[in-house]
Amino acid sequence: MEIKVGVIGTGAIGIEHIHRINGKTQGARVTAVSDINVDAATALAKSIDAEFFATGEALIASDQVDVVVVTSWDPTHEQYVLEAIKHGKYVFCEKPLAMDSDGCRRIVDAEIAYGKKLVQVGFMRRYDRGYIELKEAIHSGKYGEPLMLHCAHRNPSADENYTTPMAISNTAIHEIDALRWLVEEDYASVQLLLPKKTRNSHKDLHDPQLLIFETTSGITIDLEVFVNCRFGYDIKCDVVCEEAEIGLTDPTYIRTKAEERNYTAISPDWQTRFLEAYDYEFQIWVQAIQEDKFTGPTAWDGYTASITMMALHEARETGKKVNIALETCPDIYL
Amino acid sequence: MEIKVGVIGTGAIGIEHIHRINGKTQGARVTAVSDINVDAATALAKSIDAEFFATGEALIASDQVDVVVVTSWDPTHEQYVLEAIKHGKYVFCEKPLAMDSDGCRRIVDAEIAYGKKLVQVGFMRRYDRGYIELKEAIHSGKYGEPLMLHCAHRNPSADENYTTPMAISNTAIHEIDALRWLVEEDYASVQLLLPKKTRNSHKDLHDPQLLIFETTSGITIDLEVFVNCRFGYDIKCDVVCEEAEIGLTDPTYIRTKAEERNYTAISPDWQTRFLEAYDYEFQIWVQAIQEDKFTGPTAWDGYTASITMMALHEARETGKKVNIALETCPDIYL
Amino acid sequence: MEIKVGVIGTGAIGIEHIHRINGKTQGARVTAVSDINVDAATALAKSIDAEFFATGEALIASDQVDVVVVTSWDPTHEQYVLEAIKHGKYVFCEKPLAMDSDGCRRIVDAEIAYGKKLVQVGFMRRYDRGYIELKEAIHSGKYGEPLMLHCAHRNPSADENYTTPMAISNTAIHEIDALRWLVEEDYASVQLLLPKKTRNSHKDLHDPQLLIFETTSGITIDLEVFVNCRFGYDIKCDVVCEEAEIGLTDPTYIRTKAEERNYTAISPDWQTRFLEAYDYEFQIWVQAIQEDKFTGPTAWDGYTASITMMALHEARETGKKVNIALETCPDIYL
Amino acid sequence: MEIKVGVIGTGAIGIEHIHRINGKTQGARVTAVSDINVDAATALAKSIDAEFFATGEALIASDQVDVVVVTSWDPTHEQYVLEAIKHGKYVFCEKPLAMDSDGCRRIVDAEIAYGKKLVQVGFMRRYDRGYIELKEAIHSGKYGEPLMLHCAHRNPSADENYTTPMAISNTAIHEIDALRWLVEEDYASVQLLLPKKTRNSHKDLHDPQLLIFETTSGITIDLEVFVNCRFGYDIKCDVVCEEAEIGLTDPTYIRTKAEERNYTAISPDWQTRFLEAYDYEFQIWVQAIQEDKFTGPTAWDGYTASITMMALHEARETGKKVNIALETCPDIYL
Repeated sequence: MEIKVGVIGTGAIGIEHIHRINGKTQGARVTAVSDINVDAATALAKSIDAEFFATGEALIASDQVDVVVVTSWDPTHEQYVLEAIKHGKYVFCEKPLAMDSDGCRRIVDAEIAYGKKLVQVGFMRRYDRGYIELKEAIHSGKYGEPLMLHCAHRNPSADENYTTPMAISNTAIHEIDALRWLVEEDYASVQLLLPKKTRNSHKDLHDPQLLIFETTSGITIDLEVFVNCRFGYDIKCDVVCEEAEIGLTDPTYIRTKAEERNYTAISPDWQTRFLEAYDYEFQIWVQAIQEDKFTGPTAWDGYTASITMMALHEARETGKKVNIALETCPDIYL
Repeated sequence: MEIKVGVIGTGAIGIEHIHRINGKTQGARVTAVSDINVDAATALAKSIDAEFFATGEALIASDQVDVVVVTSWDPTHEQYVLEAIKHGKYVFCEKPLAMDSDGCRRIVDAEIAYGKKLVQVGFMRRYDRGYIELKEAIHSGKYGEPLMLHCAHRNPSADENYTTPMAISNTAIHEIDALRWLVEEDYASVQLLLPKKTRNSHKDLHDPQLLIFETTSGITIDLEVFVNCRFGYDIKCDVVCEEAEIGLTDPTYIRTKAEERNYTAISPDWQTRFLEAYDYEFQIWVQAIQEDKFTGPTAWDGYTASITMMALHEARETGKKVNIALETCPDIYL
Repeated sequence: MEIKVGVIGTGAIGIEHIHRINGKTQGARVTAVSDINVDAATALAKSIDAEFFATGEALIASDQVDVVVVTSWDPTHEQYVLEAIKHGKYVFCEKPLAMDSDGCRRIVDAEIAYGKKLVQVGFMRRYDRGYIELKEAIHSGKYGEPLMLHCAHRNPSADENYTTPMAISNTAIHEIDALRWLVEEDYASVQLLLPKKTRNSHKDLHDPQLLIFETTSGITIDLEVFVNCRFGYDIKCDVVCEEAEIGLTDPTYIRTKAEERNYTAISPDWQTRFLEAYDYEFQIWVQAIQEDKFTGPTAWDGYTASITMMALHEARETGKKVNIALETCPDIYL
Repeated sequence: MEIKVGVIGTGAIGIEHIHRINGKTQGARVTAVSDINVDAATALAKSIDAEFFATGEALIASDQVDVVVVTSWDPTHEQYVLEAIKHGKYVFCEKPLAMDSDGCRRIVDAEIAYGKKLVQVGFMRRYDRGYIELKEAIHSGKYGEPLMLHCAHRNPSADENYTTPMAISNTAIHEIDALRWLVEEDYASVQLLLPKKTRNSHKDLHDPQLLIFETTSGITIDLEVFVNCRFGYDIKCDVVCEEAEIGLTDPTYIRTKAEERNYTAISPDWQTRFLEAYDYEFQIWVQAIQEDKFTGPTAWDGYTASITMMALHEARETGKKVNIALETCPDIYL
């Protein structure tokens, strides 16, 4: 039986997810949409044969909606996720789950009160084939324990609205979740260094930045965030284990020899690099709902990511190492 | 509206396609199956909520079937394809389209008589991301005309039933279609060399073989077929153009440094290497049917592949270059 | 004790070898030069503190000369080599050893009459680190017998004086020797195909060409010669063994990510690609002379290369496979 | 005219350098040796036709010695270097130049008093082709300023005598000099992190370690030192510039496809990886002496390396960032 999906927020990413669900995701269909931009959302609803709802709350409450996707304006995420939990409906929420760790915690508490995991956060790196193979290799036992990770998250360019703290909240946030998931350990402390600034940045953005994480067992992670690297979208993750180094490749399908160069292409942007991961994320989410057997990144993952982000902001402002003390993970997330 | 698919032949590949259609292909569902193994096929039908038909002909004729997939025993392909054409139903036929070029020609003639392309042959290389990017690069005009192709088709091992001619009909057949599609030219002649034989083959199989093709404009192609190469499933296709060489990579997602080696994995088999291509092939086929706008490999492609195979068999037996004279391509295939 | 070297022919390659011997080769020094261009050669002699000789014969006869390097005009090679043998002096001769196989045979016969190997031909590929490692790997016994070789010899561009037969005599000649040395087998037959011609060639040069060799045990070799490939100087040699493929890399020392490309450089020319091989060739030659223990490519190697070249010319002209029947290798070359 | 070299210290590295000078270095010959192991050194002297001296001082003073190579026990380096300066003789000293920065400073002061650079420190990375190409690329102006360096220095294993501080003084010392030379900037501060320890280490060695340097202009460098990585000798140096990333490759000459892996070899040890660099270092040193035009790493470079090492030791012990305040570079080193 097809799952009826209601989408709150029909901006760029919302529309993309709608097409993903209707065009590529077996077993689900978008039946309802809502957005503050009534005209556009109404037209969209019509074009995909879905119902328009004036409010997210009305959409969540409707019988036409089995599960909810939240892709609205960031500050509204928390309220819609809490509303979905109230109705006991599965909800997929794009990052951030809430505006701060207190907001995330309220969602966690609501879920605990409800007694069951309903919330999935849009940490789609976990669905990338490279990360999946990397995680399998690390935990295969063939190479010993992971000791260090050397990572980079690079974008070709960032606009004037992208400011220094966003290197953490908009960019590093992906690694904050993915690396913790990869090594299956929480962070114990963070540090942040500000290297020489590129001439390609603007006054409100210190770019690049170098983040350092230590996990509870002592794994040390360095993560370069460089959002004006100019040469392409480039993700690195090299895991140094006791007996091997294992790293992501930038997957390529052809290589070229031309003009005295032997080359492969670097992805121009994250959409190109992670397209399959987004598709796979939704396919797995729908399957999990059909089997009522949740496997994705949880509200607890969103909460710990939020805690870590705030520690990184403090580390940047103080120039010092900041320790992270996380509560015990509640039972429903184990 | 969902397309109702009838599958004739529920052996290994048939079952795989059924799961592909039901589990991964948006817009289609298997509603009918037929197989000479009645018990197994009946049980299968039940498990996927489809109807069992005692004969392929009955299945094709049924209202429960919009389109047909032929994955039965090779010698039966032709009759089912012809039957589907008779009913004006789209039919997807796994290779070979027929047992020889005469059989293929009868299908071509039936299609011409019907007046519309209905038949797609299972040449799935055309749906591999590497080949698609390669074709785009060749025809981008950036690198001049293609002049030569250096190709290899390698399997780790072949069993006792695999004999010398099968290097052409079962293995090279993929490249016979894919390379012609890649350069958009027909073959003008073929040649076949028998290099030193590997000790890992048996008496009825000369392995490896080296095939040489010339296209109508003079592009020269060498294709190594080596089905006991031992080291993995390995596909090479390097296209030498007037100003560049462009080649397929073996796509990889992680790389490892261990035991004094820096390595990426080689696929163990074709299923691993071309899984996405199979999925994509069916997705595109269903879309094409929905839009009644056929784009895949045609009966004419199956026919020319058959002609080329027969020329290669002759080249192997005579040790000489064999010219290929193809009729003009009928209008409906242009 | 330092070996006194006389160099006949002080054109570009002669001067390069003189600097190599004087500047990089431990144990040897150029003491004598000769050239038909008297003024230039006299000035050169003075600048390197060597004696000028009016004729090659006088140079060879001089007490100031222990060993001879022949880098004169091709048609004079044979006479100087024969003269050096007459004086029992080691002689290094740049390719070609003589203008045809008859000339080479006269040198072989002279050496046999003298009773000892004195002649080394300038086949410097044998001194390239890649070929050396490749040969070790092939004969390590780890991967079974070699069955096929896929090779290419590409130059970025050739001038108007470079004509069709030179693809064999000036370019493929390197592989003709190197591949026979690599697999330690003689050629049994050759074939030559003329693929579609590049627009970047001129009317007297069919470029590219595809050469096919079969060795006595049946190893099949395809060799692309493409002297206007535009993208750089590119040498490929992939050896397919019974259980592995082993190939040359294009050695690189840095790699770059820039402008959406991840690349390494391709050598612009053969000097860059094989600089170390030339140096190493002379170092080993001088060592061999000091120990009176010859190890390099012999007159017999020059002779078989010449035989093979002529068979390839015939193959090109006739469009047919040409068999090669070589005499038994004389004892002194075993 | 051949330069007469006296070698003080004929242990493993001394013997290697003697063979390098006598066998591969054009323009120099070892004429004198000295070592506390009189018997071995006397025998060695005889075998290479050199004179044995009972003391380093006597060797330095001898007319038979133009220039000096110091490869003796580390604590004796300073005295021999000072003695050579006293005699106005060029001296090549293996690292460390002295046991601490005070010792290095005494050498610097002696050189300044003498009025000319005489001392070269054995920092051979500067002679590696990869580093040379990398430096050229960085300073080509094509890619903007360097902002960050991500480096690693990995050995397969370290023995029981290798203790925690040696990761800095014996291993990172190479990068301490090479990276400063690469970016042409001094260090402003250092930091040291101790990641999770590998099970393959022993109680007196914390392995791996992560060193962080900031240069005067703010370039941030992370350097992993891991001396029990097991998988081989592995040097990484990725330079992130404003518009590109440029990195060292591990140079390879063949690649292999076997056993489902596509691989190149990783060097087993530093000798294999940097053999050519050692040879080149001596060739350039001898040339520089012949032209009386010193180009290599100076006593000042040795001094700053020593200052940096001591700051790193402090950083490890305190767990804090340690600032480095270097005096102005004396004129003779500019």
